[in-house]
Amino acid sequence: MPDPQRICVIGGGAAGISAGSMAKRTNPDATVTVCTEFEDVAYSPCGIPYVLAREIPDFERLFLAGPEQYAEAGIDLRRETVVSEVDAQAQTLVANGETLSWDRLIICTGFNYLLPDLPGADLDGVTFVKNIRRAIELDTTLDGVKRAVVLESTPLGVEMLAALAHRGIETHLVDSGSWLLSQVADPDIAEPVQKSLESLGVTLHFGVEAEAFEGANGALERVTTNHGPIDADLCIVATHKEPETTIARSIGVKVGSTGGIEVNGQMETSLEGVYAAGDAVEVPQGFTGLAVQGLTGSHAMQQGRVAGANAGGGSRTYDPVYVPWGMVGGTVQIGGASFGEHLAESLGIPHIVARANGISRARYYPGVQQVIVKLLAEPGTGKLIGAQMVGGEGVKERADFLAFALKRGATLEDLAFMENVYSPPIGALYEPMSVAAQNGMAQL
Amino acid sequence: MPDPQRICVIGGGAAGISAGSMAKRTNPDATVTVCTEFEDVAYSPCGIPYVLAREIPDFERLFLAGPEQYAEAGIDLRRETVVSEVDAQAQTLVANGETLSWDRLIICTGFNYLLPDLPGADLDGVTFVKNIRRAIELDTTLDGVKRAVVLESTPLGVEMLAALAHRGIETHLVDSGSWLLSQVADPDIAEPVQKSLESLGVTLHFGVEAEAFEGANGALERVTTNHGPIDADLCIVATHKEPETTIARSIGVKVGSTGGIEVNGQMETSLEGVYAAGDAVEVPQGFTGLAVQGLTGSHAMQQGRVAGANAGGGSRTYDPVYVPWGMVGGTVQIGGASFGEHLAESLGIPHIVARANGISRARYYPGVQQVIVKLLAEPGTGKLIGAQMVGGEGVKERADFLAFALKRGATLEDLAFMENVYSPPIGALYEPMSVAAQNGMAQL
Repeated sequence: MPDPQRICVIGGGAAGISAGSMAKRTNPDATVTVCTEFEDVAYSPCGIPYVLAREIPDFERLFLAGPEQYAEAGIDLRRETVVSEVDAQAQTLVANGETLSWDRLIICTGFNYLLPDLPGADLDGVTFVKNIRRAIELDTTLDGVKRAVVLESTPLGVEMLAALAHRGIETHLVDSGSWLLSQVADPDIAEPVQKSLESLGVTLHFGVEAEAFEGANGALERVTTNHGPIDADLCIVATHKEPETTIARSIGVKVGSTGGIEVNGQMETSLEGVYAAGDAVEVPQGFTGLAVQGLTGSHAMQQGRVAGANAGGGSRTYDPVYVPWGMVGGTVQIGGASFGEHLAESLGIPHIVARANGISRARYYPGVQQVIVKLLAEPGTGKLIGAQMVGGEGVKERADFLAFALKRGATLEDLAFMENVYSPPIGALYEPMSVAAQNGMAQL
Repeated sequence: MPDPQRICVIGGGAAGISAGSMAKRTNPDATVTVCTEFEDVAYSPCGIPYVLAREIPDFERLFLAGPEQYAEAGIDLRRETVVSEVDAQAQTLVANGETLSWDRLIICTGFNYLLPDLPGADLDGVTFVKNIRRAIELDTTLDGVKRAVVLESTPLGVEMLAALAHRGIETHLVDSGSWLLSQVADPDIAEPVQKSLESLGVTLHFGVEAEAFEGANGALERVTTNHGPIDADLCIVATHKEPETTIARSIGVKVGSTGGIEVNGQMETSLEGVYAAGDAVEVPQGFTGLAVQGLTGSHAMQQGRVAGANAGGGSRTYDPVYVPWGMVGGTVQIGGASFGEHLAESLGIPHIVARANGISRARYYPGVQQVIVKLLAEPGTGKLIGAQMVGGEGVKERADFLAFALKRGATLEDLAFMENVYSPPIGALYEPMSVAAQNGMAQL
């Protein structure tokens, strides 16, 4: 078999762009084509809520590189290009009517938010936050919006709650769960974020199911729920991310239990020579081996790098994930790695809980903030299972640390006796993660 | 042998207090006595420069717990108590004239700054920053100080440079090294800190040796150097920390190459039943096995916990150290773990350097700051040797991460493909440590 010479990537998000770049870097002689149906590449969709919130002054800033940069890197980037047909046998695809051949294909088709299967979901004002062009339109719309509903407190939903409140809009959360971020966070960890959102004026409705969208002249006027109607000119649908696998399934690529494309450790699908990366795939969670899907932009980027390297003839492995996560909810940082107490209980995983109310700097230093750390560990061995945090600063860096520690099989004892920086303006004598571990060791 | 019932701790700093507390917790039936020659315990000496800088309004805030708290915990805390004689054979010591018996002794005698062996070192105005009572006096003195010299840019020296400048004092550094923090940091990493101090109005004199202190009526008026005199009412001596080992040596406890007390993995000295912890000891550095000494307050605390647990009849090991460190120099964060390029070269350790100019948040998010990461790794294997960083935020947490990664034998590849949180307000798509590792892999 000759070296792969023609590599096609479908999708221009974080996964697709990094896959294309890495493939070209690994095999500079290859023809690398990246097709995206959108006008734009290399912008940060994750920045959209912050522009809408007016924390960032304009959408222009979300763009990283112009299309010309990809040409310079030798990548054939095709924008506004729809891949309509893929033939895995003939190793071809049709892009805006043109037939392209490929030796290696990388599917990075991302995800969709699904419109809820409810009456009136097609009304104007029922919308998603995803594509930047639509977000620019939404930004203008928001100037006229008085009352808004956000459907489900996913991470994006929580970001949008704060963004809408910042814009002076009367904002309601309608959430079928019992607490904020209930898919990822424990109730005790989510509570400070709930309070922060409430202090911004957001009204939170938990355990409430949306039943219909109602309006007049094609425009939304209210969201009806099993607890009554909520007047709203706008409803942001921030439900679960559904992997977009239409193309993958059309060529017989296997899709797993989560609806995401199955890949092996090389990010190769069930079809040889066909790779996939990003929100369209599922990957094994490190502790349980269970398939997970719909991770973060940095996961998409790293998966793309692995897929691209392998498609380019290299040899890279993508390891099971421990999923460090973090975000700002209201004015509070929340995050973690692997999973929390609630999910451990749902999965029947035996665990002990190690907790500490730590601080981010010396207790007397200006700007010191609380950092609450909760660690889950195996009874007996003390091996870490997961972590959740909420607090003022350093949550992202600690989540990265904990994901790494989890991957390395660290125990509570390892963290209890870890070395840490102590310097009053930037770190307390007692590192909060270490204190949580010390508290947990008493239970072993 | 019966359980140890009488445990004496000499020293009331971070090591001594944590040793005493852990000994009592491990063996609640033991009599635990902690002797300190000072009036105060459980205050934060590391906070002193920030009170002197007026960043913290008063010294009161540096106190954590009153002496009564130790009584409640069942610890016999003896303040202003000088241990004058120790008899290792009889297992006794004399504390303020009273003879106490011990089954286990824990030596936590800390360190001293040595007055330079220079003419005029006894002049008023030549001083250290260490004890809180003297710092309170110094605070008053500073109101009348016009010009000050800091001798050597150790971490404390750098903190004091900023503190004196904040107080509106004309401040000079006299340093025999060629760049700031040359004992711990590489010149390229120290450079942004140097610039920051200069922008605060500090004058930095490198490669300059102090030769004498000169004055009139017993008071300092100038520091003379091999590059000429510098007028000064005050000179802060911030030279190397010398381990205080008088008592240890008096009973024949072995002292190592650094001048610190030798201890094994249980923090036990060369005399059975005699433990030591904190700035008085030396411990093996993880990568080289070389003895290191004069670490941080958090190291003293953890060493005390291990010594206390073992003295109390438990079984704990203190692992070789990778020494995460971090501080604010001027307005810039600097830190690292293990050692940098300069020291690796001095020690003749083969290494490659992996570098990245990363960012702390999404590049478009307000408050985003540069984080420069430099990783050292073994040629061939890519195994991490050390790390240095300088930048705006997150240096402490990354130093903790890197020390842990070093301990676990992580490689550049591990960091290049690490998982990281991406959320615009708190973390960039590309984690700076990961980018540095990716850049380094190209050299392997």
